[in-house]
Parts: sequence; C-alpha cells; structure tokens
Amino acid sequence: MSTTVQSEMILVDGTWQSADAASFFQSVNPATGEPLPEKFPVSSWSDCEQILQAAFSAASELKKLGPLKIANFLDAYADLIDANIGMLAEIANLETALPVEPRLAKVEGPRTSGQLRQAAAAAREGTWAHATIDTNANIRSCLEPLGPVCVFGPNNFPFAFGSVSGGDFAAAIAAGNPVIGKANSSHPGTTKKFAELALQAIEETGLPAATVQLLYRLSHEDGKRLVADPRVAAVGYTGSRGAGLQLKSAADAVGTPIYLELSSVNPVVILPGALEERLDELTEEFLTSVLMGTGQFCTNPGLVMLLRNRNTDAFLEGVKKGFSERAAGVLLSSSVQNSLIAAVETLTSAGAELLSGGKKIAGQCSVSNTLLKVDAQRFLSDPEVFQTEAFGNASLVVIAESVQELAQVAASLEGNLTGCIYSATSGADDGEYDVIAPVLLNRVGRLLNDKMPTGVAVSPAMNHGGPFPATGHPGFTAVGIPASIGRFAKLTCYDNVRSSRLPPLLQDKNPSGAFRFIDLKWTQADVQG
Amino acid sequence: MSTTVQSEMILVDGTWQSADAASFFQSVNPATGEPLPEKFPVSSWSDCEQILQAAFSAASELKKLGPLKIANFLDAYADLIDANIGMLAEIANLETALPVEPRLAKVEGPRTSGQLRQAAAAAREGTWAHATIDTNANIRSCLEPLGPVCVFGPNNFPFAFGSVSGGDFAAAIAAGNPVIGKANSSHPGTTKKFAELALQAIEETGLPAATVQLLYRLSHEDGKRLVADPRVAAVGYTGSRGAGLQLKSAADAVGTPIYLELSSVNPVVILPGALEERLDELTEEFLTSVLMGTGQFCTNPGLVMLLRNRNTDAFLEGVKKGFSERAAGVLLSSSVQNSLIAAVETLTSAGAELLSGGKKIAGQCSVSNTLLKVDAQRFLSDPEVFQTEAFGNASLVVIAESVQELAQVAASLEGNLTGCIYSATSGADDGEYDVIAPVLLNRVGRLLNDKMPTGVAVSPAMNHGGPFPATGHPGFTAVGIPASIGRFAKLTCYDNVRSSRLPPLLQDKNPSGAFRFIDLKWTQADVQG
Repeated sequence: MSTTVQSEMILVDGTWQSADAASFFQSVNPATGEPLPEKFPVSSWSDCEQILQAAFSAASELKKLGPLKIANFLDAYADLIDANIGMLAEIANLETALPVEPRLAKVEGPRTSGQLRQAAAAAREGTWAHATIDTNANIRSCLEPLGPVCVFGPNNFPFAFGSVSGGDFAAAIAAGNPVIGKANSSHPGTTKKFAELALQAIEETGLPAATVQLLYRLSHEDGKRLVADPRVAAVGYTGSRGAGLQLKSAADAVGTPIYLELSSVNPVVILPGALEERLDELTEEFLTSVLMGTGQFCTNPGLVMLLRNRNTDAFLEGVKKGFSERAAGVLLSSSVQNSLIAAVETLTSAGAELLSGGKKIAGQCSVSNTLLKVDAQRFLSDPEVFQTEAFGNASLVVIAESVQELAQVAASLEGNLTGCIYSATSGADDGEYDVIAPVLLNRVGRLLNDKMPTGVAVSPAMNHGGPFPATGHPGFTAVGIPASIGRFAKLTCYDNVRSSRLPPLLQDKNPSGAFRFIDLKWTQADVQG
Repeated sequence: MSTTVQSEMILVDGTWQSADAASFFQSVNPATGEPLPEKFPVSSWSDCEQILQAAFSAASELKKLGPLKIANFLDAYADLIDANIGMLAEIANLETALPVEPRLAKVEGPRTSGQLRQAAAAAREGTWAHATIDTNANIRSCLEPLGPVCVFGPNNFPFAFGSVSGGDFAAAIAAGNPVIGKANSSHPGTTKKFAELALQAIEETGLPAATVQLLYRLSHEDGKRLVADPRVAAVGYTGSRGAGLQLKSAADAVGTPIYLELSSVNPVVILPGALEERLDELTEEFLTSVLMGTGQFCTNPGLVMLLRNRNTDAFLEGVKKGFSERAAGVLLSSSVQNSLIAAVETLTSAGAELLSGGKKIAGQCSVSNTLLKVDAQRFLSDPEVFQTEAFGNASLVVIAESVQELAQVAASLEGNLTGCIYSATSGADDGEYDVIAPVLLNRVGRLLNDKMPTGVAVSPAMNHGGPFPATGHPGFTAVGIPASIGRFAKLTCYDNVRSSRLPPLLQDKNPSGAFRFIDLKWTQADVQG
C-alpha cells in the first residue's frame, strides 16, 4: 500500500526507507501538550517481513565476523553518542520533558555511552560467555549468539533503556546478535537519531547493515506476530505490564525467550529505630527518591511500609510538607498522567486515604505530588489492588501495628525489582529486621539497607530483575555487564569437536585472557597440553 | 473422600499416608505384559494442597539451614542408593524391562549416586552460585534458593532422571529447595523405593521432613493447577512433548520457570569421506547407539543425514543386516510401543520407505528394529512431519543429492539436543563440514564430531539442552554440575546491606573456597579490606 503522507523513514537493512503504513502518529511535547511536527508510520507486516529477513542474514554474518568487530562498533557508537549528546538531549527533551541538564546530557547520556563501552570491553574479552572446558572428556561449551533480538524500549529512559541504545540493546549486540528496535511511541524522534548514529558506526566499522534496524509502531497483532516469528531468537521488553504480558504469551507459545521488565512498587520498610535516629534525613532521602524523574523510575519507591510508632505522623507530615514545597514535575505523556490519576482512584476506592496531591495540573502533563495511606489490615484485605502501580510522583504508605502484620504485608507482595529496609544503626531494630528481611528477600531481586532504590548502578553485581511479575524470570538481570549479556545467548557444547573447528574462546590457547571454567576452576590460563 | 482399596502410600511431610484418591493404576511389566500387583493412587487436589503447604514451610527452613546440611543429605542419600542398588534394580527391571546388569545396577545406579555426590560437593563449595562482588559500590549478588520445585521424571531413566533421584532432583536440592516429586507412571514402585531412601537420609541428616515428597499421578487438570500454584517456584519436566507443553503453558501464564526436556531426533550427518574411510566402524557405532536401551535415549540418533555417494547403499545394507541380527529389545511400556508404531505409520504415510522392521513383536512390548529412508526433497516438502520422533529402536535416513540440499535439511530442523557430524580424518570432507556445521549448530545444544550422541557425560562442560522444542530455553543444561543447579535459583542482590547480614557466600571472608567474581575477576580469595 502506498501513501502520500510525508512521514519519517524506517531503517531496514542499512537503508532509510518509507514504511508501508496505513496510519501515522505524532509524539507530543508533554510540557506543552502540543504535538510535535514529525509524523511516524505505523508499519504493516510487510515492513516486519523485510526487517526479519535482513536480520536473519545479518545474524550469521555477525557470527562469522566475531566479537572484536562487534566491540569496535559498540565503541564507535558510544563515541558518536558522546559527540552528539547535545542534539540528542534537545530532541529527547522535546519528546519527554526530561531536563536537558543534568538528566539527559550529563547523567543518562554518559550512562548510555558508558554501558556501550562496558559491553564492548566484555565482548572483546569474553568472560561473559562462561567458557567451560572438561579437558579429560574433551567436552567444551560456551554461550554463543542466538539470532535476531527484538528490543522494545520503555518511555522513561529514552537513552539508557532505548530500543537501539540502551541496556538490552548493548547486551544483545555484545552477545553477537542483530537488533530489531521498536521505538517507544513517546520518543520516536529520539530513537531515530540514535539509529542514525548506530548506522554511521556500522558503516565505519564494517558490520552487516542490518545489525541495527528500526521501526516505530505496529498493530498489537503484528507485535505479537513479530515476537513469535521463527526468525526472532529472543525479545527484550521494558514497559507496561499489560502489553508485556501479551508479548510474553506470544513468545512463550513458540518457546522464544522473552526478558521482561514490568511494573514494580519497590517496597521500602522503615523500622521505628531508624525513624527515631534519622527522621529528617530519611524524610529527605525519600522525597528525593520518590520525586526523581517525576517518580518515573522502574525502581521508584511506590510503597512505604511503616511499623506504627511515635514518629509515624511526623514522617507523614514531613513528606506532605516536602510534596507541597516542591513543584510537581512534568510526566512523560498524557497517557502516564491518565494512568496515574486512574491508579490513585483505584487505591482510594479500595480504601486508601489521599493525604496530598492526586490532581491533574492544568497546562502540562502533571499530577500534584501524591501521598496515600492505608493501614495494614485494609491492605491485607486486598493486596492485589493495593499493589496497583501508581507510576509517577506518588507513593502509598502502609502502616502496620505489629512486626507480624508488617511481615504479612511483605509476604503478600508480588515480585518486585527492589525492597529496602531502613533500620537503626544502634541495632535497636535488629529483631524486626530478622523477621522482615527473609520474607521481603523472597519477593525482590535486590535488597537494600538504609538506601533508596532509585539508583541502579551499572555494576557487575547489580540485579535489575526479580520474581514475576517484576520480570519474566528470577534468574536474570537487565542491568550489569557481563551478566546481562548472557540472556541473549544460547549455550552450545562441543563434544569431541576437532580443535581447529572450535570457536576461538574454546581453543587451548587463550589470547583474550577471558576467564574460563576449566576442570572446575576459573582461570585465565591456556589449556595445558 | 475415603477409600477401601489397599493402595500404596504417598509421602507427605515425612509421613507415608493414604492418598485421597478416587482411582488407582498399576504399572505393567513390559517383558510379560502383565500388570504388577501394587495399586498406586491418582491423587486428588487435597493431596497436593497438603504437599504444597509442607513444601512451602520446608523452603524457608532449608534456607536457614544452609548448604552444608543439604550437602550431607545428598551424600547420605547417595550412600543409601549404592547400598540398596540391587533391590532398586530388581524393582526397576520389573517395571521397565531395563536389564538389571549392566544397565541398572552397574551403569545408571552409579551414575545416579555419582550425580548426587557431585551436587553435594557443589553445594558445599558454592561456585555454582556465581557470587559477584563490586567492592567499590558495595553491591553483592549471588544465586539463592527459589522455593519448592516440582519434578516430573521421564520413563526412560528410572534412576538418573527419576523425580526423586535424578539430575533435576539433585540440582533443585543442591540449590537449596524442597522437591515435590511426581513419579513417572511407568515405574511408580521404583520411585517409591527411592523416596523411602530419601526420607531415611532426611532423618539421618536432620533436614525438614518435607524436603522430599512424592505422589504418583494426578489428573491433567490438577497437574496444571499444581505447576501454576503460587507456592511452586519452579518446575523440571522430562518427557513427552504433548504433556510438557501443557505444563509449560500453565507455568508460563503465572511466570513460573519451567525447565523442559522434550523430544529430539538428534540428527547425525555422515559425510562421504568418513564413510569411505570407516564404513564398517561407522555402521557398528551407529548400530550400538541407535539400539542402546532399545533406542529409548533422549539423545537417540533418530535422524541420519547422508550425502549420496558410492557407499550410501552399503551403509544402509550394513544397518539392515545389523538390525536383523540383533534381537529387538523390550520397550518401556505398551504406550511406547504404540507410539513407535504410530510414528512409523506417520513417516511412511508421508512418503518414507520402510527398509526394515516397523512391526510389533508378539508376547512383549517390542517393535522390530526399524529403519526408514527418505530423500531430501521429500523431507523438505514437509519437514515437520518427517521430524516426528519415533521414540525407540528406529531411525530415519535422509539422503541428499548435494551439500546444499543437506544444508537445507539441517536448516529445516527444529531445535534438538544434539547434532553429530562424521567427516574424513584426511580432511576430504572439510568443505562440506564448513557448510553444514554452522547451520546445524544453530539448531542443537551439543555438536559432536565423529561420535554418536547417546553418551551424555556428567561433565561441567556438558550441555544437555538445546533450542525449543528440545527444551524450553536455549541457555540451560539439565546435565552437568554446577551449571544445572543454577536453573533452580533466583538471582539476589544485596545493595549496601550491612556485612553481618550478608549470606556467608557474600561476606568478605571466603572459607568455603568458592570461586567468586570480584571486581570482574574470578577468584577464591577473600575480599581485601
């Protein structure tokens, strides 16, 4: 089907071309509510078909090229991002209202190029692949590229989790796979600029043209068809639970690994001794964390669990005061704004008390800073409803009358990315900690002490993951190199394979210095002849 | 509901008790076709409910006890198996017709106790948990127990893959989880004996009584309800594709990890130069492999891919002769016999030529040794049908006219556990190898050279896994310690957690000598203060 609408191009096999589109969309500047001028196509299946075919061929070419060229690409791309960060931040600011500085240009930008460089280093060195050698049996195995990976990026980190720039992208490429990026509809223009830079880096470093491809939007049906296509080897998705579970269902049915990062309320337990010691400090820490990025972090502290004590009211008053003194930030889109208002209504209808905020602010995509409260018994009467994620600058405080009740609330939680416990440095809360921590630990991917969850360090020891429905599998992390790379790989074993036919990482000599697990010991040494 | 049928007991929370059963089944001696006397209950949901509750409590107790006691249990259990191997082999022989010696008592028995001891050593030492420490950020993570694991064992390895004795069992326990075993209906008596020994080892070593529980059969509905229950943390299933996919669908819907090992035809490519060099040797190797255990190995070579050459007919004649000279073994059950006959019919209806066998043998569960042949073009006209698994002593030979055709056949394959390529030692087949190997590698978990796939060494470098539908996820292996253990674990990160509250494996001191990934280096050292 042809069209006369002047719209943005999609990236197919190294060429910017017109989409086969029956409809178009525009992103909206959330700070003004005005649509931005560019029209982006909603691709039909024929675009996917072309992209899939090109990705499938690129996958085998990439496997032949090997990790060094791939690492060069990741480094070159990181350099281009750094060199163009001003331009990227300006576009992203128009599309998301996230501040150019420090957020986009000084924080998320460097984080994004830094991740790509870490991925490059990991690809070059090879420890990520868990090469395992049994010299006695002559059996050798390692993680290898899997094939084309579809990446669906979220709205809240246009750079660091972007479909063609973020953590899933970096991991999928470092593992040796081509990426099919589906831009998030709230920042298609930003994603397009990243894809332009990626293509430039591809050309500079001689990777297959289809190593990075981009489309902007699909019908729900075509989205499901895409992830279930046999040419797609794995999927990374970060976003809303509803859409994520639809894609999971389509991928599961054909046995395609899908790595999800869905909603999470990130419980923060503040024990009485901690409040007694550090009331003002804790209030301030919480305010900073919950309002950071207008609360639109995956690890935003959306649920605070208190054991009632003489400082409880002072904490609530402190938060209310802080909320009223700080301007409500701009949300990413009117859809985020509407979802937040709807979540507040769900929570109050179920019996939560609205202590502050909960109202739309005229003239921009904003909701006043929102604090809700519920007692533990009420929470326990319908834990599912009270775990409704209010994505944005909002948090629900649950107040328990006893540590047992607090533990019951913890036990009723769904899987979350994080759980925090603040306790007295004096040891006064240690008894309560020992009751709560094992219960909370079961429900979260990352347990923090005396620290808010919003910092997600790009560390090899990070787990940005957790039990369902925070993610789709409790064994994987989306952040942290080298671990995140292994998600997009297949374990391959070479049994009695002649030495010249082994992949370099499994040969006797180990020039890259990768750590390998040889006869049950991790070592950088060669296999001894 | 109560019953007056005298039936075998199920194992619930350390007690052998009558099942709540409305119906019963008997296993059948496949060598005689006669039912064995014991009646086994088909449990109703109330049995599951009791078992789940007990397993859920045991999971937190086990986590408190820690790995050393768990390792002691695995060792004690292995010793009991060795001490009782004669009794176990006799019962298993009655139920499965697998030979007492060497198969059960001398091969599968020692393999089973050996796996349990390897799992014990891995649990005690801790490298399996991938402890990862970022000393600068004070972020530490490792794999930890996940919760109750349901294990559904297959019919073909009553010991080494048994629900309460095999590889999934050993891995789930070593990770620190209680196991709910669902016996395979073809050898419930064997499984019961194992559970008795497991309970004895539990009592000797002081583990929670519900560390190992057992039931024999459930309705399909209750089976799905069981794996989807929120108290079940993960599932291991080895068996038929139909039942496995039903369970997968139930587990996927609630985000519970399920590790499947389903059907696999295990393609073996024999290149012309290899046949030229080693015709008799290769024929003999193939005969031994395809008839081993009456062909009832997960890695049985069910598909042979030949490039037509002057030795093709001689190879086929040699196999036919070997098949006719060797008695057909007894199959595990009449259901295996019927499935094999049905598969042969499916293949011949689609156009495969039956070269030998394919008939039931009267008086026992046997089918005459079966060889089928099809040309590559026919195969490619309906690859799905020609990959119908003929589980048992049968194999289909595909004959291609060119290496391109051979590669097309390889590309059309579903995911398999193994793929083998035989090539000339002279290098005469190297050109063909280079065309076929990359295509085949994409479709299999383990690539072999010059070796049949039926040996699955318990090696750290083994991959007994592969792309869907051979398994449910291409990144995991069911055999090979320590890697298999990590499947039944959750990644848990400790961010800024006070040092006395860290699990032992993540503390600065490293008394167990586990390898830990500290600041991007694998080391057995302590964290330097």
